[in-house]
Amino acid sequence: MTESRKKTVLLIGGGGVGAIAALNLETGGLAEVTVVLRSNFKAVNESGYQIESCDHGVVKNWKPTHVVNSVPDITKEGNEPYDYIVLTTKNIPDIPPSIQDLIAPALPPSNTHTTIVLIQNGLNIEKSLLKSHSNTPILSGVSLIGSAEFEPGVVVQDDTDRLLIGAFSNPNLPSTQQTSLAENFVKIYSAGGKTVCTYSSDVLYDRWRKLVYNACLNPICAITGLDTGRIRLADGGIEGLVRPAMKEIVTAAKEVAGVELAGDVVDTMIEMDPLEIYLAPSMLADVRKGNFIEFENLLGEPLREGKKAGVAMPTVEVLYNICKAIQWRTKDAKGRVKIPPKRGAVAK
Amino acid sequence: MTESRKKTVLLIGGGGVGAIAALNLETGGLAEVTVVLRSNFKAVNESGYQIESCDHGVVKNWKPTHVVNSVPDITKEGNEPYDYIVLTTKNIPDIPPSIQDLIAPALPPSNTHTTIVLIQNGLNIEKSLLKSHSNTPILSGVSLIGSAEFEPGVVVQDDTDRLLIGAFSNPNLPSTQQTSLAENFVKIYSAGGKTVCTYSSDVLYDRWRKLVYNACLNPICAITGLDTGRIRLADGGIEGLVRPAMKEIVTAAKEVAGVELAGDVVDTMIEMDPLEIYLAPSMLADVRKGNFIEFENLLGEPLREGKKAGVAMPTVEVLYNICKAIQWRTKDAKGRVKIPPKRGAVAK
Repeated sequence: MTESRKKTVLLIGGGGVGAIAALNLETGGLAEVTVVLRSNFKAVNESGYQIESCDHGVVKNWKPTHVVNSVPDITKEGNEPYDYIVLTTKNIPDIPPSIQDLIAPALPPSNTHTTIVLIQNGLNIEKSLLKSHSNTPILSGVSLIGSAEFEPGVVVQDDTDRLLIGAFSNPNLPSTQQTSLAENFVKIYSAGGKTVCTYSSDVLYDRWRKLVYNACLNPICAITGLDTGRIRLADGGIEGLVRPAMKEIVTAAKEVAGVELAGDVVDTMIEMDPLEIYLAPSMLADVRKGNFIEFENLLGEPLREGKKAGVAMPTVEVLYNICKAIQWRTKDAKGRVKIPPKRGAVAK
Repeated sequence: MTESRKKTVLLIGGGGVGAIAALNLETGGLAEVTVVLRSNFKAVNESGYQIESCDHGVVKNWKPTHVVNSVPDITKEGNEPYDYIVLTTKNIPDIPPSIQDLIAPALPPSNTHTTIVLIQNGLNIEKSLLKSHSNTPILSGVSLIGSAEFEPGVVVQDDTDRLLIGAFSNPNLPSTQQTSLAENFVKIYSAGGKTVCTYSSDVLYDRWRKLVYNACLNPICAITGLDTGRIRLADGGIEGLVRPAMKEIVTAAKEVAGVELAGDVVDTMIEMDPLEIYLAPSMLADVRKGNFIEFENLLGEPLREGKKAGVAMPTVEVLYNICKAIQWRTKDAKGRVKIPPKRGAVAK
């Protein structure tokens, strides 16, 4: 009886990555998904998603079981806690709200039932949650997908979904429990057979490996305005920028975390996205939309950890500081900073 | 009699810098200027320039003596050679035509009469001309002006014109002749009393000093999309990017050319433009207009010379490589490169 009940999943953030995650979870038939949407709530609530996907084909007017426009307050509404809260929003610690604040209505600090799944990029993203929710299991999701939302509810997935799930180590919980929760999530996510979701026992390895892409190719595309195809075609883009940055991250992975990335990881990451899909990685997509970028977890944390461990990271450091300036530019464009008024050319 | 004849000046490139140069030259009454225009020829030929200038005030419908839309072929037209050919175009050696090709119709290789004045930025810009016109004196103009053309013929100069003129050393000509040509140009440029144009005996010093701005602040503004006011206000823009890059250039100046830049040059250059004019330096203005940027003379040459001299220049090197990628992006946008066709998300 209990076994046949669908798992309840609250999925926060239904953009390019979240929409495909919701689709995979519901396609398998083992989960009932509530998706929390903001900018695309109206479009999806009225007409569902319009999806063009290399994994699922063309899917029109698809709606997850529940679509809501804010995180449900389970205490106020007297709801059962969710089995899983999956976060597929951007993780931008330098711009409020924090993810702890975001999930708070659906997750009391005393929670022991709900498992959090962070399908989010970057290093040390679990740290703040381990403090705010010390008895909550937290899973790490490292997604290698090419997917973007081009207008509200319109999602194009042009590179296959490959998702690695493992448990962030929580010292307050037995590790067997954490492992089994991760394996169970893999089961419900994979059940539809449209995607490759696998259990991973080495979260740090996964995260550092993806940082080879995300701390380097991703910001370099955002900064130069070139997609992952064009940066490979541009004069010196790979040899002058991407490869030197990636080598710094590979060295940092070893020195900081003892993570030995295979010798071909740099070339693998450079060629990760098929050239001819001209994929705009997340930071480039965000810059183009005038959104904030996830640079603190993607570049900031590996840089800080690497420098602390004595690794020379001159390329990543310049990229990081440029991203910081670009983030300020977005704050300025959104009216979030106050600057002195402009002076005319001719004295009045 | 000869002395009272106005000097003939062919000025190539009448944008933000060139328009103010033409205005200064004609205001003094000692020169008769022919301005060669391209994109703004129609506007200026029909209605003149509309200038708002901190040096000259508001100047409406101002026309130089002659306005033409191509470099005159003096041999074909049987014209006298010009006394001066002044170049105020961008100098972009990686994008044809070269400046030798550009001036060729007005300057036979055998020229001994005409003096070239390069009011252009960067290092080693005289090298190719010394080869193509080995008996032509070449003057160096280092301009510290804030001026931009916002639409064809509409120029806003919001920071004063300060111009340093000296002779690039030409081993085939007596140095006294070169010096006196430079001093004479200063005289005719300054005669109107609206500007500060001074003779300089140390061209390398001037050029390296300006590179502290142009190899650093200028590309950093272009890359981050922030003007010179905003980069000072942005989190970490100065300390994380501008200052480290400038220090590398100061070291390179010393090691490459024996140029000792004063201890306060970095701060002086950071504060060069009044914050509240929010000046877009040339490379940012060019990026915004979709134009090519002058990165090879501004960053490429100092970087190559610096590295050859053993100077560590990690920041400038990353900036250079980003500029290279941005230049490729512009080529791509202008259809000057051929790339493989885009593949759809769903297999057809």
